[in-house]
Amino acid sequence: MTTYANSEPPTGATESSYAEVQAAVAAAAAAAPVLAATPPADRAGWLEALAHTVERHTDELAATADLETGLGRARLDGEVARCATQLRFYARVCADGAWLGATIDHAAGAAPDLRRMNIPLGPVAVFGASNFPFGFGTLGNDTGSALAAGCPVVVKGHPAHPRTHARLAELAGEALGDAGAPAGSFGAVTGMAAGQQLVLAEALGAVAFTGSEAGGMALHRLATTRPVPIPVYAEMGTVNAVVLTQAAAAEAAAVREIAAGALGSFTLGLGQFCTKPGLILAPSGSGLGTALADALRANPPAGVMLTTGIHEAFGTGIQGLLAAGATPVASSDAAAPLGPVVWVLTADPKLLQPGSTLLRECFGPVVLVVEYADAAQRDSLIAALPGALVASVMTGGSDDPETPGLVAALTPKVGRVAVDAWPTGVATTWAQQHGGPWPATTDPRATSVGAGALDRFTRPVAYQDAPKAALPPALRKGNPWRIVRRVDGRVRVPREHHEARVQVP
Amino acid sequence: MTTYANSEPPTGATESSYAEVQAAVAAAAAAAPVLAATPPADRAGWLEALAHTVERHTDELAATADLETGLGRARLDGEVARCATQLRFYARVCADGAWLGATIDHAAGAAPDLRRMNIPLGPVAVFGASNFPFGFGTLGNDTGSALAAGCPVVVKGHPAHPRTHARLAELAGEALGDAGAPAGSFGAVTGMAAGQQLVLAEALGAVAFTGSEAGGMALHRLATTRPVPIPVYAEMGTVNAVVLTQAAAAEAAAVREIAAGALGSFTLGLGQFCTKPGLILAPSGSGLGTALADALRANPPAGVMLTTGIHEAFGTGIQGLLAAGATPVASSDAAAPLGPVVWVLTADPKLLQPGSTLLRECFGPVVLVVEYADAAQRDSLIAALPGALVASVMTGGSDDPETPGLVAALTPKVGRVAVDAWPTGVATTWAQQHGGPWPATTDPRATSVGAGALDRFTRPVAYQDAPKAALPPALRKGNPWRIVRRVDGRVRVPREHHEARVQVP
Repeated sequence: MTTYANSEPPTGATESSYAEVQAAVAAAAAAAPVLAATPPADRAGWLEALAHTVERHTDELAATADLETGLGRARLDGEVARCATQLRFYARVCADGAWLGATIDHAAGAAPDLRRMNIPLGPVAVFGASNFPFGFGTLGNDTGSALAAGCPVVVKGHPAHPRTHARLAELAGEALGDAGAPAGSFGAVTGMAAGQQLVLAEALGAVAFTGSEAGGMALHRLATTRPVPIPVYAEMGTVNAVVLTQAAAAEAAAVREIAAGALGSFTLGLGQFCTKPGLILAPSGSGLGTALADALRANPPAGVMLTTGIHEAFGTGIQGLLAAGATPVASSDAAAPLGPVVWVLTADPKLLQPGSTLLRECFGPVVLVVEYADAAQRDSLIAALPGALVASVMTGGSDDPETPGLVAALTPKVGRVAVDAWPTGVATTWAQQHGGPWPATTDPRATSVGAGALDRFTRPVAYQDAPKAALPPALRKGNPWRIVRRVDGRVRVPREHHEARVQVP
Repeated sequence: MTTYANSEPPTGATESSYAEVQAAVAAAAAAAPVLAATPPADRAGWLEALAHTVERHTDELAATADLETGLGRARLDGEVARCATQLRFYARVCADGAWLGATIDHAAGAAPDLRRMNIPLGPVAVFGASNFPFGFGTLGNDTGSALAAGCPVVVKGHPAHPRTHARLAELAGEALGDAGAPAGSFGAVTGMAAGQQLVLAEALGAVAFTGSEAGGMALHRLATTRPVPIPVYAEMGTVNAVVLTQAAAAEAAAVREIAAGALGSFTLGLGQFCTKPGLILAPSGSGLGTALADALRANPPAGVMLTTGIHEAFGTGIQGLLAAGATPVASSDAAAPLGPVVWVLTADPKLLQPGSTLLRECFGPVVLVVEYADAAQRDSLIAALPGALVASVMTGGSDDPETPGLVAALTPKVGRVAVDAWPTGVATTWAQQHGGPWPATTDPRATSVGAGALDRFTRPVAYQDAPKAALPPALRKGNPWRIVRRVDGRVRVPREHHEARVQVP
């Protein structure tokens, strides 16, 4: 198989016209009230149908994506499976109904009968990522959670994998139609101009984006020019820090193990992950730099980067880090004719000042190792960190006395703190948080992975003294949707939720 | 007692210096981690202490506010009591702990142990409203909900009642200190420049504002110039529509009753409520205009407006409505030497086009009555409405067949739909929603009243594989705070929550 991602970026993806973008949004707007009125269990069925379709076409989809991205079949097969798992998870969350936030206060004293629930915001524009054609792409976390929340989706496909996008969009349209979803539930457009037109479309309810800080902030700023503001959720890249405790680095064998883990994490997907560890803070004299150099020599990662543009930007990023005072500890030979050089850099801790290039993401296989002299210097380095998606603490064991303090110090900086685990790897579960303080996201309250992802796409409405016939089912007497509700201040869990996990039909 | 609000706006309120603003924010930033680490039940105690202080000083506070606002002792005594009730409600919500969103996924298969909860965003700047010195002022819904969520507050007092603000701030500082809250939990500044410096202060976590669209959007735009974006929740004024069904207007006696209710609602507080009904859509031939004119003649409201500036703006607003094609149905004599003229206007339904001045808030005692010829015209009028805080439907009874359709048509436009109830009057309960699509708020997901108000001031963090000692109590085994949590996908309600409403210590 010829991998042409890095030498011949695929062309021929026709760009959507202005009329096509407006038609996609109009179809989504027409579908919006239908989706909003559909019982969650039915929408869960649509997501199940999407998952099933994706799975049935694993071979074709992974092969197409491999041609376009060069990510390799093993990774891409796995990512298709992950995409299906995610869609099924959002189906479960949808059917569970907790995201509706159903709350009922019966009239009491001077207070009227008030019933509150979350309703969908309307059509959502999804901007897929370059690096996860299935996980964060046309049918990834954003699309799954938006449909689960009752919002039609219009995806702007990423130019790095136009054929994968086109095929996924085709399959999604068929599967949703067969499952009974209204036309307009899912639409797809391509091209940068189309993306901008999407963000400015009057009927749009929200924007979800995964990608670079430059791209995310451009959409965020564009949206501020709308006559009516809408939420823009841009999940962007960050410098994710890993902090080693004294005990973690006390023995050479442990440091070698950490070095092996670090190499695996910062070169996973050739470092093209938003959760890549970009900075490791280690006690001075840890020998981590040397151990990383040894590990890199023993296991040089192979492969090409997603696009020529990303490869070039990586080279520019390395130059920027070196210009900002980083010095090389080790580097690999380019692992493939068009593959990137893998870099381990170090720097004087005094250079890690707010605003420094050393504290900005460099998308690709590079890690910066910085040694701290003592706890005070370590703490001031942590205080200087910008917001990030995730940070890790590597400890000397579960009773390492430094762990609680480090976890607490990192919490204000990030959306997730991992202990003795590398930051890459984002499970789609109820408790996941994939977001964080700026520049991790434009909205620190948002997550693009996990059950909380639905909350980005709803807003609450209260009904006051409304007769039963005018109330949505979620708020009616008898709880016809059998969802968790708060009634007169107390949380009420239907018996079905105790007996078993919610089953999706 | 001399009411000087409208003739001699109080002066002598010293404006906070730049250094004072920075000191207030620095103190709040220093207090933030202490507040975040304080058990919710303890913070609930602080809110109880605030409520108690406010109540004990009712006489003094209401008298001071009456001098400054001319709102009258009956209203102001009631509003002080309401302020205390609100603070007690936020204490209860705080102690309940559901706002923490505690979620635990034990490790399963490839997925790690993940635990997620909401943490406070840090110092919150609160901009009090002109029209509710206690309800939405220095210690109103915004301050109460921010403290409940664990955020220190710096209030920018409203210039319409500086002495009330200063006294409330003094009392709050004393009460919080006595209750054990750290210094910096509550701060206060005055002056427009101070407000701008607050919004731009680096350590700020969020902004909450209640007031005019011009004021709210100015702060919103100012915040977009920050290097690090933060959420700005501006709750602004809107044209709140009331729709009469055919059955509601079928009998003259019913129309007279509606007119009396409408007069009471649109002139409550001399129309200086963000929930004032600004537009009534009635079936043609309803006679509502005449009935309103009769009601106004029989019961002309008395009083002066909050400030000379607001009075002047009201006059300008009326001129704008007339210039946009509204025609007078009735008007009162000015009810006091410096009081406003109360207006009932009407307009051709064809003039209610998106963007028309007729669909913009006019803050003060004016209502626009528009008659629709048929259901189709009524529906197109509803479709043309901009976003609003609230809408009402007046029906012919609980089985009026028009009600469900009208409630559904109004839902996409507003944060609350009331049936056979006027939009003024916002109970502070679990299910309340006081917000809505722009221009009601800058963030349609936000509410500034009710249990949901806390959600504006938190963001989620996930802990991955963290040992018990590094976990916050909300996420520890054994559930030490006895809060509702979702564990492995199922909602778990501690026995105490079933047995009784949560008691605040």
